[in-house]
Amino acid sequence: MSIKLYDLCGADESHRFSPYCWRVKAALAHKGVEFEAVATPFSQVKNNVQTEQKTLPCLQDGDQQVVESFDIALYLDEKFPDKPSLFKGEESIAAARFVQSWANSSLIPLIIKLVIKDVHSCLAEEDQVYFRQTREKVLGAALEDIYDASAENIEAFRKGLTPLRLTLASQPFIGGSEPLYADFIVYGMVKWVAKFANFDVLAADDPVKVWFDAIDQNYQGV
Amino acid sequence: MSIKLYDLCGADESHRFSPYCWRVKAALAHKGVEFEAVATPFSQVKNNVQTEQKTLPCLQDGDQQVVESFDIALYLDEKFPDKPSLFKGEESIAAARFVQSWANSSLIPLIIKLVIKDVHSCLAEEDQVYFRQTREKVLGAALEDIYDASAENIEAFRKGLTPLRLTLASQPFIGGSEPLYADFIVYGMVKWVAKFANFDVLAADDPVKVWFDAIDQNYQGV
Repeated sequence: MSIKLYDLCGADESHRFSPYCWRVKAALAHKGVEFEAVATPFSQVKNNVQTEQKTLPCLQDGDQQVVESFDIALYLDEKFPDKPSLFKGEESIAAARFVQSWANSSLIPLIIKLVIKDVHSCLAEEDQVYFRQTREKVLGAALEDIYDASAENIEAFRKGLTPLRLTLASQPFIGGSEPLYADFIVYGMVKWVAKFANFDVLAADDPVKVWFDAIDQNYQGV
Repeated sequence: MSIKLYDLCGADESHRFSPYCWRVKAALAHKGVEFEAVATPFSQVKNNVQTEQKTLPCLQDGDQQVVESFDIALYLDEKFPDKPSLFKGEESIAAARFVQSWANSSLIPLIIKLVIKDVHSCLAEEDQVYFRQTREKVLGAALEDIYDASAENIEAFRKGLTPLRLTLASQPFIGGSEPLYADFIVYGMVKWVAKFANFDVLAADDPVKVWFDAIDQNYQGV
């Protein structure tokens, strides 16, 4: 097996929680490309990742490393053109960038409130120090003050998925009749909440739940 | 000229203001299809539109009428396959539906606060009665209570365009190197605000302004 994915993990190596890594794992599963997901705590990223940018996910294909989830998806479609597509042409890539821009700017602020304390809790002690320092600097507040998995904030997250929900009234996936990378972008976000939630992430009758379960059941082996 | 577009108008026939009609007018201009935009006040819609659904925009091509802006765009690509495309295949149609779902659910609530009083003011008296009754019923408040073009609400509208703004860091249009119907969906929304605004709709240094001006300058003749 030549493909490795350096995959963020907690103190327990089996605890994987990065939304960006899920985007890529769902993409790899969609293409049917076998890979090894290498558990990588924050403190090990600089050792595993040799590219200038030291971030996860990082795909290792032989000697080559690729970082940034979107760039990894592009790489996979180029490397394995005969496997199921993640994009359908230049316009599909452009549209996926819009979906990513929406998910990153609209969903992440809603999700952080629901999961940030749990992300911190699952990390090894050394990683907890790093995570708290970097995140509190960016977010301008203590993790404990940001975290608030109230019913109101859960509802705000569900409401944040409205553009997806309305889309699913016309078609089963953002990609149309089949999922494309645009779907996996949003899947990674919802999966992030689901990983930590001790509440129902999506209402039982939510069309987004049907969409999420379809992707998750296909790819939960990864 | 065989193509007509029934286009919503105010008491002054030259006053056109429907975001959904602009989507189609930009689409027609993009394709280079000549058409006549027939000024149609709310009170005349039922006379001009023969389809079961009596809404504008309504495209008249010979004996055939098509309503719903998205369906009109699909019709135009099918009818004029050799003219510049509005969509690039099934996946592009699917992606445009996501963009429309986002624009309709995320932008309209922000825009209504900025324009609803002005929309009402520009209508003929008979149309004002209809507009107030239907909109106040849906929105659950008096038009005057909804309207609030405060600096805070203008800023909220600009912030609502963040997914587009981030996308434009990678590419000049949602469609990629050239605009597609997905761009015209959002263009219609921004144009709606620009039509009525006595304020700067977009900051001078906003990349969205470059995007908007490029589409608007190409299509402002329509």
